[in-house]
Amino acid sequence: MPSQKTNINHVFHALGDPTRRAIVEKLSKGPVSVSRLAKPLAITLAAVLQHVQVLEESGLVHTEKAGRVRTCSIEPAGFSVAEQWIDDCRSAWERRLDRLAELLAESDED
Amino acid sequence: MPSQKTNINHVFHALGDPTRRAIVEKLSKGPVSVSRLAKPLAITLAAVLQHVQVLEESGLVHTEKAGRVRTCSIEPAGFSVAEQWIDDCRSAWERRLDRLAELLAESDED
Repeated sequence: MPSQKTNINHVFHALGDPTRRAIVEKLSKGPVSVSRLAKPLAITLAAVLQHVQVLEESGLVHTEKAGRVRTCSIEPAGFSVAEQWIDDCRSAWERRLDRLAELLAESDED
Repeated sequence: MPSQKTNINHVFHALGDPTRRAIVEKLSKGPVSVSRLAKPLAITLAAVLQHVQVLEESGLVHTEKAGRVRTCSIEPAGFSVAEQWIDDCRSAWERRLDRLAELLAESDED
């Protein structure tokens, strides 16, 4: 399992590509086989497989092979890593804005 | 102004780099000049400027120049684009899991 530091690099990198985001959007509605993912995207099976592999390595998607069919599903943990990082930053700047508002209120009272 | 589609590519791409995330973490606590950003990161001023430019183009950071000092601040709108996209995906898979739970409950009742 990659460290969180490595993982978060992979997560954001993976989501920076519109085809990979289209795959994630599709999988959010339910598991889909690699060949069914390829059709609406109008790209080759090999290209889809490559994108799925990037998503799998980043922890956003997992795949299972049954016979000749590889089925892809969403892996919520990868999204939590990205959400947590954004949340932490947002908390930091909101705390700062709150402090500024308090200082402003105090200076108004003086 | 870039379209949301372009913007979200830039946002996730920008956040996929650990130095750029370190810059964002620092700026979350308050505005900082480019030269003060460079010091703890132990990279050249030119490299910091390049990272800041990527963050500015993606809408995550804005900069203002006063005399010879360029000051960087967080731009919350860029984060909202990323948060909204993740939220939409999460809503889709949570709705699906709710429907599955309902179906399971119904089949238990039969």
